Amino acid sequence: MIVEHAELTVEAGREEAFEEAYGKGRLVLAEADGFRWTELLRCEERPDTYLLLVGWDTLAHHTVGFRESERFARWRALVGPFFTAPPVVEHYGERTARFTG
Amino acid sequence: MIVEHAELTVEAGREEAFEEAYGKGRLVLAEADGFRWTELLRCEERPDTYLLLVGWDTLAHHTVGFRESERFARWRALVGPFFTAPPVVEHYGERTARFTG
Repeated sequence: MIVEHAELTVEAGREEAFEEAYGKGRLVLAEADGFRWTELLRCEERPDTYLLLVGWDTLAHHTVGFRESERFARWRALVGPFFTAPPVVEHYGERTARFTG
Repeated sequence: MIVEHAELTVEAGREEAFEEAYGKGRLVLAEADGFRWTELLRCEERPDTYLLLVGWDTLAHHTVGFRESERFARWRALVGPFFTAPPVVEHYGERTARFTG
C-alpha cells in the first residue's frame, strides 16, 4: 500500500466549509480504483494547513488511475476553491503496520 | 487524539539498521503515558526521508510528558544516531475518522 500525503493550505475563515466539501469529496475518492481509505487532519502549529492522507493499492492508482480520470476533476471542483496555494503532494510506503504496544 | 508527525532524515545505506532501531524504540514509546499507536513510513520521492507518526491522547502527553521523561533519552539514543538532520516535528488533530467508503 502507498499513502498519498498532501498538505493543503486553506483560506482563513473557510475551514468549516472546506471540511464539508471534503466530506463530499471523499465519496468521489472512494469510487476510484485502488482506493483504500482517507483521513483529514489539521495542523496545530499552522492552523491554515490540513493534511490529507489517502491509502492506495499502488502509486499508479493515484498518480495515473485517479489523476487522469474525470473523478479527479470532480474532487478538485469540490475542494480546490478553498486552497490558497497549490497542494504539496508526496507518497509514502508503509514500513511497519500500526503498532499499539 | 493528537498525531505527532516527524520527518526523519536517515543516513544513506543505514536504512535497514534504522528500521531495526525503530522496532526497539517503539517499545519505549509504547511505555509512555498517553501513547496510543505509532507507525513508520518511507518517502517515495525522497528515499532518505522517513515519516514517524505517533498517536497521543493530548499534545502535552508528547511535548511535556514524553519529551521531559527519561524515556525520550532512551528513544533518541536508539534512533538518533541514524539522523543526518534534526527531525522536523509538527502535530495534527484528526478532523475525521478514517473513511473507507
